[in-house]
Amino acid sequence: MDEKISHYTNILGLLNWDARTGAPKKGRPIFAKAKGTLSTEMFELSVSKKMGEHLETLSDPEVYEQLDDITKASVRVRKHAYEKSKNIPSKVHNEYVVLASNSNDAWEEARTNNDFSHFLPFLEKVVEMKKKFTEYYGYEDHPYNALLDDFEPGLTVDEVDPLFADLRRNSLDLLQRIQKAEQPRKDIFEQEFDIETQKKFNRFLVPKLGYDMEAGRLDETTHPFATGINTGDVRITTRYDRNNVRMAIFGTIHETGHALYEQGVNSDYEGTVIRRGASYGIHESQSRFLENMVGRSESFWKFFYGDLKTFFPKQLNGVSEKEFYRAINLVEPSMIRVEADELTYNMHIMIRYEIEKGLISGEIAAKDLPDVWNKKMQEYLGITPPTDTVGVLQDVHWSQGSFGYFPSYSLGNLYAAQILNTVKKEMPDFYGNIENGDFMTIRNWLKENIHQYGKLYTPNQLIKKVTGEELNAKYLVDYFEEKYSKIYGL
Amino acid sequence: MDEKISHYTNILGLLNWDARTGAPKKGRPIFAKAKGTLSTEMFELSVSKKMGEHLETLSDPEVYEQLDDITKASVRVRKHAYEKSKNIPSKVHNEYVVLASNSNDAWEEARTNNDFSHFLPFLEKVVEMKKKFTEYYGYEDHPYNALLDDFEPGLTVDEVDPLFADLRRNSLDLLQRIQKAEQPRKDIFEQEFDIETQKKFNRFLVPKLGYDMEAGRLDETTHPFATGINTGDVRITTRYDRNNVRMAIFGTIHETGHALYEQGVNSDYEGTVIRRGASYGIHESQSRFLENMVGRSESFWKFFYGDLKTFFPKQLNGVSEKEFYRAINLVEPSMIRVEADELTYNMHIMIRYEIEKGLISGEIAAKDLPDVWNKKMQEYLGITPPTDTVGVLQDVHWSQGSFGYFPSYSLGNLYAAQILNTVKKEMPDFYGNIENGDFMTIRNWLKENIHQYGKLYTPNQLIKKVTGEELNAKYLVDYFEEKYSKIYGL
Repeated sequence: MDEKISHYTNILGLLNWDARTGAPKKGRPIFAKAKGTLSTEMFELSVSKKMGEHLETLSDPEVYEQLDDITKASVRVRKHAYEKSKNIPSKVHNEYVVLASNSNDAWEEARTNNDFSHFLPFLEKVVEMKKKFTEYYGYEDHPYNALLDDFEPGLTVDEVDPLFADLRRNSLDLLQRIQKAEQPRKDIFEQEFDIETQKKFNRFLVPKLGYDMEAGRLDETTHPFATGINTGDVRITTRYDRNNVRMAIFGTIHETGHALYEQGVNSDYEGTVIRRGASYGIHESQSRFLENMVGRSESFWKFFYGDLKTFFPKQLNGVSEKEFYRAINLVEPSMIRVEADELTYNMHIMIRYEIEKGLISGEIAAKDLPDVWNKKMQEYLGITPPTDTVGVLQDVHWSQGSFGYFPSYSLGNLYAAQILNTVKKEMPDFYGNIENGDFMTIRNWLKENIHQYGKLYTPNQLIKKVTGEELNAKYLVDYFEEKYSKIYGL
Repeated sequence: MDEKISHYTNILGLLNWDARTGAPKKGRPIFAKAKGTLSTEMFELSVSKKMGEHLETLSDPEVYEQLDDITKASVRVRKHAYEKSKNIPSKVHNEYVVLASNSNDAWEEARTNNDFSHFLPFLEKVVEMKKKFTEYYGYEDHPYNALLDDFEPGLTVDEVDPLFADLRRNSLDLLQRIQKAEQPRKDIFEQEFDIETQKKFNRFLVPKLGYDMEAGRLDETTHPFATGINTGDVRITTRYDRNNVRMAIFGTIHETGHALYEQGVNSDYEGTVIRRGASYGIHESQSRFLENMVGRSESFWKFFYGDLKTFFPKQLNGVSEKEFYRAINLVEPSMIRVEADELTYNMHIMIRYEIEKGLISGEIAAKDLPDVWNKKMQEYLGITPPTDTVGVLQDVHWSQGSFGYFPSYSLGNLYAAQILNTVKKEMPDFYGNIENGDFMTIRNWLKENIHQYGKLYTPNQLIKKVTGEELNAKYLVDYFEEKYSKIYGL
């Protein structure tokens, strides 16, 4: 049964990849149905009576003690999913899958036409459905905990609230100081960069970072992602824009970070439920670590800037390495989350986190979202979106019912900074390695300490094992302070 | 049950497409297992007791008469498959799937190293397995009939033998006369053609031929194919070689012919077993028709040659339209089936057909294949392969157990010529339409008369409905005679 679920998971992974990398428009509705059939089949297996009995047998303390570590972890993960989902009738699960698909279509149209009212009835239904799910799941204290747990097992609002408050206070203070300092050059990225050359640079860059080209492929998409279809097949997607060369470079490094994680999981875990990353937050820590801590470091461009200049000699003519480094680290409040800088990015997440909590608890009504959104943008970042398209409608997540997902992004930043602190202690020449283009030493450290374990540990166990501490905001706050003080001469 | 089988078929179609268009090497063994799981699941459904009872109920004459035409045809196709396969134990089916996969790997290695002995033990097992299958299937007269029927339902060696004998006699006579005549220029295609430009030309060409770009996509592969994943998702693949521009152009037109068929099937058939082409032979008739009867016609290049020249001005400088037309219709015995010209192509097929019959009847032993192959090449085409790699090891089919498949290619040519004769009668301005680039009129005729029906009719019913006659060799013989007499001035 486990093997079948694993195989179906592999296949569903491919179906998702395909749907997002050029599957023909006219075939999609039919494919959605086929995917629904397989997904329901898998759901039914994972909450079946047989699964329940199987898990009960293995959970018997006497039996459990005899199991190997892989099986123990698999039982933990499977049982958690089983307990959460067993009360959801297959019919309700189906309804939800169909609603999510229709809601996603409505959102796309609404975003294109800047028409929130077109999306609203779907959003309302999705929120109602998610509220119902929190009851099926069961929760303590706050219903949002039940959803947060889907992405970061065990985490609660009581833990997230102070982390975010701490980060927010420090970030806004730093932002004020940055805004008064001398700004980096902006003109560098206001030029056109040929797309074919961007692609060539990415194909040159990605394998150097440790990505195994024989266990993956690079493709184009509109919303970039990385996906581990199986341990030998981890695919990266990216997107290109003539007018935004940073997007492709850093987006690709980001997805490579995710991909290194999936490629690094112990291949003995293939066929089990612990084959993928420990949590969404830990996963995001690996993409952020590579994108920001490595890819936006001075050392990184000491190694790569010469290469980049050979790809774009005209555009980078007269741009010094230092100017380039400052420019890629420009901090500036902006409308769009996925284009935000490292520092203000977390403010975008907190806005979403607060709205999600309010929607699920009932304190915020879906119809008020454009208003709530705009007020919070003003409060956190001092700007107001001119349209809902670049405001409340910008993200896909809510349309698909992914409530509880957004915090993972900032948790990823927090985890990443805490991990960086440990890496630097254990590998004193961390930046020297980057400067010499020795990314394998870094990848190997991550693989050895994090990647190989998949879901063997819970995210909380893992961060304690790696860093010796519970997750806290101190390291990210310190990292920002140090980094931007240097860049902005604060 | 039918819906589930249909959805799984859609999904398996995607898995095959993916495996052949760049799925990462290291993930393939895992994917092969996942595919095996889904394929076995589907096999078990299609031969299940429930399926048997379902088909029995629907086949009851009183019930059957009440069914609509789609259901009647679905019952016919499903029942045929059920009756053939119901005796095959699921375990044997699995063994066969695994063997075919391993045998395919062994063949690849054998072909690369020109080492038939490496492939031989696998081939022997595959042949034994296929013999066993003919017993499970049941057959009349010749065991090969049971395999032929997998690709061309109802066709027997008693029908194929005289068709092929007739075609062979006439083709070899024509070939002799051609070899004595003045030959076309060969130097045109002995130049290098930039691959990116070849791709651009193909992307320009394919939609003009009636292919719906919103219901498909074009990709690259090593062994080109077209696949109808569902009625709204019909994908084409092709390959490129700097030194062989003809391969990409005519290979792509060929696959477009297959794709127009799948795109043209009545979309009401989606979800049923009659959703795809009537048979492999009929399918091949559609690809050959577009590739040869249309794509290698003088009229086709009257319309497209100017365009091609704008893509390759240097290479086609000083090459007249007539010289180009003659060059793409060069007839010359050669080693490789997929590179053979229209006329000698069928000789390659007959060699394989005779060997297959002998292997299955036991008259030929697998170990003697290199010898038998080389003798037949000498006998039919007057040439002997210098190595097994360009001889008996050139094709993938036997390694995968696809015995009975090869005849479809020549049957396709025969069907195509017979259909051409009807088209020309019903559309007197057939070549005029081509010359004017009006391919939609031709596509619509094919859709109306052939494509839309999917498997509603048996291949035999269909060819009679379209042309008013049983399949015979006369039309292809006449077509060759007329075409080459003009080109070679016979």
